[in-house]
Amino acid sequence: MKEKELINIIKNILNSEYIGDDCAYLKDLNIVVSQDSLVEGVHFSLSYTTAYQLGRKTVMVNISDICASGAKPKYLTISLSIPDYIDEKFVEEFYKGAKDACGDVKIVGGDITGSDKLYISATAIGSTIGRKISSRSNAKIGYKIIVSGEHGNSAKGLEILSGKLKVESEKLNNFQFSTFNFQQDISLLPDNIKLSTSKFLQSHLMPVARTDFSRQISQNCTQDYAMTDTSDGLEDALMQIAKASNVRLKIDTSKIPHDAYVDMDTVLFGGEDYELVAVVPKDLHIDGATEIGEVVDGDTGLEIDEEFYTDIDDKLFNHFKR
Amino acid sequence: MKEKELINIIKNILNSEYIGDDCAYLKDLNIVVSQDSLVEGVHFSLSYTTAYQLGRKTVMVNISDICASGAKPKYLTISLSIPDYIDEKFVEEFYKGAKDACGDVKIVGGDITGSDKLYISATAIGSTIGRKISSRSNAKIGYKIIVSGEHGNSAKGLEILSGKLKVESEKLNNFQFSTFNFQQDISLLPDNIKLSTSKFLQSHLMPVARTDFSRQISQNCTQDYAMTDTSDGLEDALMQIAKASNVRLKIDTSKIPHDAYVDMDTVLFGGEDYELVAVVPKDLHIDGATEIGEVVDGDTGLEIDEEFYTDIDDKLFNHFKR
Repeated sequence: MKEKELINIIKNILNSEYIGDDCAYLKDLNIVVSQDSLVEGVHFSLSYTTAYQLGRKTVMVNISDICASGAKPKYLTISLSIPDYIDEKFVEEFYKGAKDACGDVKIVGGDITGSDKLYISATAIGSTIGRKISSRSNAKIGYKIIVSGEHGNSAKGLEILSGKLKVESEKLNNFQFSTFNFQQDISLLPDNIKLSTSKFLQSHLMPVARTDFSRQISQNCTQDYAMTDTSDGLEDALMQIAKASNVRLKIDTSKIPHDAYVDMDTVLFGGEDYELVAVVPKDLHIDGATEIGEVVDGDTGLEIDEEFYTDIDDKLFNHFKR
Repeated sequence: MKEKELINIIKNILNSEYIGDDCAYLKDLNIVVSQDSLVEGVHFSLSYTTAYQLGRKTVMVNISDICASGAKPKYLTISLSIPDYIDEKFVEEFYKGAKDACGDVKIVGGDITGSDKLYISATAIGSTIGRKISSRSNAKIGYKIIVSGEHGNSAKGLEILSGKLKVESEKLNNFQFSTFNFQQDISLLPDNIKLSTSKFLQSHLMPVARTDFSRQISQNCTQDYAMTDTSDGLEDALMQIAKASNVRLKIDTSKIPHDAYVDMDTVLFGGEDYELVAVVPKDLHIDGATEIGEVVDGDTGLEIDEEFYTDIDDKLFNHFKR
């Protein structure tokens, strides 16, 4: 699976101006649209996620794409392909979670088919009326780089859930995360890590789309700006903007909001936080935003703590790998 | 898998006015939207369909839903989940087929993920501007029932492809459809069935959405009307309209267009023709339409050749089963 190569093949065949952002902006209809799929065994495991959580996450992942465009999330369709071991109760709980995540957004359709694994594909539609729509190619020299929320929490949550978290004894008072069973053992956690652990798990299982951060920017920014979500990690989001805009993004990692228990490689490379990264004019004030850098003159790529990187390369990855 | 029961559970949770037609009509955005999935081993087999054909069919199946609403098909997103045995060439051919099926419709997004079987989910968006949008609940006493094209061809095609077609010796000059290999043997067919066979296979592998039939109705009908496509078969389409509108549809099977080699149970119950059924005022003239009946006074259901049926029941199915 080489997703990005396949997308290039598809782009060449379709010769489409629409592919490249989190959403396609359909100007004649005043809408944006985005479709995202979640596949059992690839994106989630039923061994650690409930039907309710999965319904919530399906909705949030798709609303997050709409938020990345700056549009107002309005409608969703959801297709479920369900194997024999999924019963009616599961479908009911899934849709309860989906509905609870929706807020003002309405689920208006989709279909149900059989399959051999659980496969979920949702499409979200947003209204662009009264909003300025982002593009990854809009970052300009002199703009600041801002982010919502903390980074790396979801990846840390997945490490706990999948039992892969290494013991970080000096930080965690010798608590063994690697043998931790969240359902049974949460009350046994030392107080100083209980909060972080809950946050990590919540972030992975029940992420929240940043509708307010998005709305503030798209209603108040009068100039072109770039925005994307961190579904594939913060570094990937930044590199996508740098390449699409042909600019150099200068990042100060000490400014990136993250939990004390999350190391910098997870902050940069951990996926599925569904936070937003925006590159906007310096004078735009956004509540809840943290400035982590700026767009500077120079070759296209990322300047992270004064080291320069041109693409998602081993050099960058290895530098921050613990 | 009881698709219709699950849809009822979902309807109850969502309490949604949008679910019930081929598309959801989003009036505030002047669009309709529909999502449909195709799952390997459930909806198609790679043993008899090519990547190109599958790309075409994915697009047509989704455009057909938009046509059923009367809206103008405009945009599509496609999500592919692909297993290891699907290579780049397959994805390329799939998108070539998809693009060729599009006409004026544009593919504007989607995603690609891994999976263990090939899953395809597409979403179609149509514009409602200048069109009157259908609802299955709009059939009224005195209206006529019209259909596009022939019925049962796709199911016959699937019978040939899956080797399940029984020999109908007196009709087919003793030709053995059951051992027929389309790729190798088409030229060996007797002339009198060659045309039908090609048509059956084409209808199943490369159906064509009825955009013109749909456009004529939605641009010219000034009153409310009902329309749906025959993705789940002609009888199912008629029953859906009868139940949603609380009316009795009187059908004369001798008027239903079908190939001479297709028996009446396949005409009524065979799926995937993607023809349209509309229930419209008597004075509306539509090119290419065949009138097969009318809406009459009486209990809700179908009156087929003067026998009355209240739902998709064994009585109806057995009556026409050869």
